[in-house]
Amino acid sequence: MHIQSVGIKDIQIPVRVLEKGGGLQNTVATISIQASMPGRRNDSCVEVFTSALNDSLGEISAASFSRILSQIQEKLQSKAARLEMTFPFFIEKKAPVSHTRSLMEYDCTFSGGIGEDEDFILTVRVPVTTLCPCSKEISSDGAHNQRAEVSLHVKFRNFVWIEDLIVIVEQSASCEVYALLKRPDEKFVTEKAFNNPMFVEDVVRKVAVSALAHPDITWFAASVESFESIHKHSAYAYIDSDEIR
Amino acid sequence: MHIQSVGIKDIQIPVRVLEKGGGLQNTVATISIQASMPGRRNDSCVEVFTSALNDSLGEISAASFSRILSQIQEKLQSKAARLEMTFPFFIEKKAPVSHTRSLMEYDCTFSGGIGEDEDFILTVRVPVTTLCPCSKEISSDGAHNQRAEVSLHVKFRNFVWIEDLIVIVEQSASCEVYALLKRPDEKFVTEKAFNNPMFVEDVVRKVAVSALAHPDITWFAASVESFESIHKHSAYAYIDSDEIR
Amino acid sequence: MHIQSVGIKDIQIPVRVLEKGGGLQNTVATISIQASMPGRRNDSCVEVFTSALNDSLGEISAASFSRILSQIQEKLQSKAARLEMTFPFFIEKKAPVSHTRSLMEYDCTFSGGIGEDEDFILTVRVPVTTLCPCSKEISSDGAHNQRAEVSLHVKFRNFVWIEDLIVIVEQSASCEVYALLKRPDEKFVTEKAFNNPMFVEDVVRKVAVSALAHPDITWFAASVESFESIHKHSAYAYIDSDEIR
Amino acid sequence: MHIQSVGIKDIQIPVRVLEKGGGLQNTVATISIQASMPGRRNDSCVEVFTSALNDSLGEISAASFSRILSQIQEKLQSKAARLEMTFPFFIEKKAPVSHTRSLMEYDCTFSGGIGEDEDFILTVRVPVTTLCPCSKEISSDGAHNQRAEVSLHVKFRNFVWIEDLIVIVEQSASCEVYALLKRPDEKFVTEKAFNNPMFVEDVVRKVAVSALAHPDITWFAASVESFESIHKHSAYAYIDSDEIR
Repeated sequence: MHIQSVGIKDIQIPVRVLEKGGGLQNTVATISIQASMPGRRNDSCVEVFTSALNDSLGEISAASFSRILSQIQEKLQSKAARLEMTFPFFIEKKAPVSHTRSLMEYDCTFSGGIGEDEDFILTVRVPVTTLCPCSKEISSDGAHNQRAEVSLHVKFRNFVWIEDLIVIVEQSASCEVYALLKRPDEKFVTEKAFNNPMFVEDVVRKVAVSALAHPDITWFAASVESFESIHKHSAYAYIDSDEIR
Repeated sequence: MHIQSVGIKDIQIPVRVLEKGGGLQNTVATISIQASMPGRRNDSCVEVFTSALNDSLGEISAASFSRILSQIQEKLQSKAARLEMTFPFFIEKKAPVSHTRSLMEYDCTFSGGIGEDEDFILTVRVPVTTLCPCSKEISSDGAHNQRAEVSLHVKFRNFVWIEDLIVIVEQSASCEVYALLKRPDEKFVTEKAFNNPMFVEDVVRKVAVSALAHPDITWFAASVESFESIHKHSAYAYIDSDEIR
Repeated sequence: MHIQSVGIKDIQIPVRVLEKGGGLQNTVATISIQASMPGRRNDSCVEVFTSALNDSLGEISAASFSRILSQIQEKLQSKAARLEMTFPFFIEKKAPVSHTRSLMEYDCTFSGGIGEDEDFILTVRVPVTTLCPCSKEISSDGAHNQRAEVSLHVKFRNFVWIEDLIVIVEQSASCEVYALLKRPDEKFVTEKAFNNPMFVEDVVRKVAVSALAHPDITWFAASVESFESIHKHSAYAYIDSDEIR
Repeated sequence: MHIQSVGIKDIQIPVRVLEKGGGLQNTVATISIQASMPGRRNDSCVEVFTSALNDSLGEISAASFSRILSQIQEKLQSKAARLEMTFPFFIEKKAPVSHTRSLMEYDCTFSGGIGEDEDFILTVRVPVTTLCPCSKEISSDGAHNQRAEVSLHVKFRNFVWIEDLIVIVEQSASCEVYALLKRPDEKFVTEKAFNNPMFVEDVVRKVAVSALAHPDITWFAASVESFESIHKHSAYAYIDSDEIR
């Protein structure tokens, strides 16, 4: 019987990720690797996976992804192999009014394969603010708002930068989120969110419009989870480009 | 633009689940609901979801699933809706030698839909022991072993009980796991695991053989994650019945 | 060498908890037990712990706590033993305007000991809304708000009900949180929060004032974690009655 | 009313940590800061905390800890402030027989204060293998074993390196854990664990003996959580140097 995949999960290593500006950013990745398995193995797959990973420590690039996957495919004689790495990525943001600089952290994932499924998928998870249109409309003052998390997954023809996907998402919510805000900044983001009320489905729709217009994105899926401030549960919306086109 | 789905996530309610023996078991479920959304909504989806849920508190059965989903579909005029609930399920097990009774807890999920995807999927997550064949073969004494978790997802033509799926999984590992073991039981499980070494791919293969032979299971997927005692990372294997047949 | 404690962690069992109204509520508890250990053991502590637990399944009360702890103390000849159980507790709440009924879930903990430290501690974790006074003051419209979680731990001379502690906390925030709100309710909670701005330290201070005034509470600690809607990080405040008096 | 502390939680930043060998290691820290608060604040504490953090990005040392804490204490006029950072720390280990090099990851925490409590506490969390003495003794073959996690917290008079604490822990279990093992290494660790059976309380006792003998450690606490391979729950032991001496 053909086993669809064997692999390892949750191994952490330090990596360096290329920034749009040309720099290399130091961060820490959590990695999973899977490979299809034709028959019964004789030796330890786990050793093959960790060896391949260990031989390619350091800068993570398209080249190192290919090298790791080829090495695994060859040693295990697999039809297919897949590697996924999730890491915090840091961007220096300027506060909207005071222009104070601070670092924001975004969870990102690279996922790539060799053999059957060779698609490379880039995922960014971006915290934003959502402010409820219904609450604003019916209330004499204020409107409930809260932190939400947008996940955007894309495939592309030419490489798309993490930084560009984050901009797409941050421009699609009631307001973006910062690590450091002075008083004039806090006034700005409060008023911006209030003047820009959005349900979770409004956010995914706006993300979708931008992603559809991007010349290099060939597929995407977007979801929003809003940690409602008036409930203990989350509101949620999801869209997949295959269902729209 | 058509939004694929809107929903709520992570709402908890007490439920009663039917046991194979005929009893009703009290437990607590974490629930997510999603519905497809044709256009722009006027009122609060979140209210529709929580209202439907609130109207059907208590015993969870095929009937209550249908009732909740129909109510949501009608109020939101959705093409499709889907409900998922995850809960701990308790089974009284007898220790293998002393026959001491104790309760074991298994995480289970019911997932069902109305409209486009009407498949009902039952998932059980079962802790087991895996003992490494390679370690046993090469070592003069002992063999590394560890707790692993098997997830088995099934679709069926006639209802399959949680209890029956758990038996399938527990018979497919190096040994099953208990909440309470006396000394003669501990001797028994240690020796059973030692005489029954299995890699993660052996466990999914054995689960697959039993699931394929079951007359009511029409589809399944099984995965095993083994929390390796000699590593900090997990070993993993996965199989899907669509890829075998 | 004296080992301070041995124990088991993270065992789940179904329990029934007494409600203020006299009913027994079915829920699921996660349990940890620890006992001091004089010297080297001969047999399995784990078996002693799980046996004691298994003998007292069902309704959890002061009596069953004592019975489990006494049994462990006697079998292990321990100077001291301690049991902690955490469980979701459900209360039917009425929405503030429509009076629609729905269930809210609160994470609670009972912690009790025998021997050296016999204090019984009751903990409730209550989701609430906080609305930022600074944001309201400086902005022309609106104010950022978010879900927050208040943890209140108390010791008492006469038994204090979970339900009463939850009321103390819910009256100490910008607004309380509900599972189900109709439109007039949503208007009410939005406006109530807007008219009741509070920093995290205002919330703990108000909880502290109520707890100090309670005739049966002999000690308490309260903390608030606010999942800021304009930041990715949380704001936090903490107070302990021993530091005030 | 005096509020014991206000703070921020769960902010992530990239940091560089000094290695024993003299190098600087790039990693990512999750940070919490708290300060005591005399009365009612006028401006945003959150801004003070994130500003102080933002001014000291980069290499984390005793000097940067002091600088951040002094800045917070001064701006908030606090009696006391405390900073805690948790980060994965990587060490290149050699496999025991093949000497293959691979990176192991350890979760570590620095915690330091200014004002009332100025103790600096270093914590390392180290995965190890435990093999059950009882299971080995009563079984004709094999013995159940599993991954366990040891947490060691220390205060010191002269600085103690993370690397040295990890060695203390790894020498105190049935066997240490590696990221990459070849077949002769797997034979070695299997046999070493089998010849070195230890209950959780044996592990904390051995850690305690080494920590007591260390000339620079002035206080410590150690705990072990063992993810039992024959149970779904963990076995646990704890020791605190204040209770021994």
